[in-house]
Amino acid sequence: MFTREYSLIRAIAGGIGAGARRWYDLFTNAMDISLQDRYAPRNRCFGCGPANDQGLRIKSYVRGDDVVAEFMPEPHHQAFEGMLNGGIIGALLDCHSNWTAAYALMKARVESTPPCTVTAEFHVKLLAVTPLGTALSLRARPTEVRNSSAVVEAEISVDGKVTATCRGVFVAVKEGHPAYHRW
Amino acid sequence: MFTREYSLIRAIAGGIGAGARRWYDLFTNAMDISLQDRYAPRNRCFGCGPANDQGLRIKSYVRGDDVVAEFMPEPHHQAFEGMLNGGIIGALLDCHSNWTAAYALMKARVESTPPCTVTAEFHVKLLAVTPLGTALSLRARPTEVRNSSAVVEAEISVDGKVTATCRGVFVAVKEGHPAYHRW
Repeated sequence: MFTREYSLIRAIAGGIGAGARRWYDLFTNAMDISLQDRYAPRNRCFGCGPANDQGLRIKSYVRGDDVVAEFMPEPHHQAFEGMLNGGIIGALLDCHSNWTAAYALMKARVESTPPCTVTAEFHVKLLAVTPLGTALSLRARPTEVRNSSAVVEAEISVDGKVTATCRGVFVAVKEGHPAYHRW
Repeated sequence: MFTREYSLIRAIAGGIGAGARRWYDLFTNAMDISLQDRYAPRNRCFGCGPANDQGLRIKSYVRGDDVVAEFMPEPHHQAFEGMLNGGIIGALLDCHSNWTAAYALMKARVESTPPCTVTAEFHVKLLAVTPLGTALSLRARPTEVRNSSAVVEAEISVDGKVTATCRGVFVAVKEGHPAYHRW
């Protein structure tokens, strides 16, 4: 009883919801609001938490299929005078790629918020000195998107020269994991 | 002329030098002075510089063939409440492994100071949640030592449980590289 009506209402609601999500996505992209500020403004992650004033606070922006960020290293992020530390390079690439994965999974699932993803692994290659004192450009792209995980390839470049690359695997956590619904 | 005498003097001096180095190494090991404090006390690297008061300041100690460290994460190193950020995990493993490589190269070359090494690549696998609020144990071991590079495998464990592993390649830089003689 009322099954057909219920299905119809659900379809309409679903359509409105999907449309609203699509518009929200277009709106926040048009407003150029970072993924972190859209979906996790109270997050205190060392790499990407907007609310961690001792963290790196990277901001990742959608640009077509890619996700980009800019980052200005501070003097205490050095490996030595003039050169950025490899651990900080890894932290930037890890968090930026994680958000790229979360956003790709959200789109693939046609959901309105990204799932909470954690890093399974990341492999950083340091190709050249990444300098201090100049803004770094990060660019990431999902290369494989499965149901609950994504592979992301990312790079850091300075004045057009790629200084570091990263390939990471990121997993959407399930209920019960401590990271579930942390955003 | 004097070739034989010069060779003899050089051999004696070399023997004394090697002996002194061996004694210095035994002494500093016996005193349990970290590699960073022995060889680079003024280093300001984010991960391992004793002189960077905003850095992680890890201290790596020789234990037979292994190099170990303990690290107590701070609240701002979180990924989220109770869980350590993957980027910080990578930074710890990268710097600790780098010192393991530098020490292994020094021993292999029978030199008195470690060469300045930089990271070529590192591959971190996060196997389980690395918690906050408890000391982490790091352990690293060189698995390949060549003339100017070393491969190091490392892990982080908490209460005996391995939560993260890393395989890294580290290269002794040559004259002209900005990292040459930075320690």
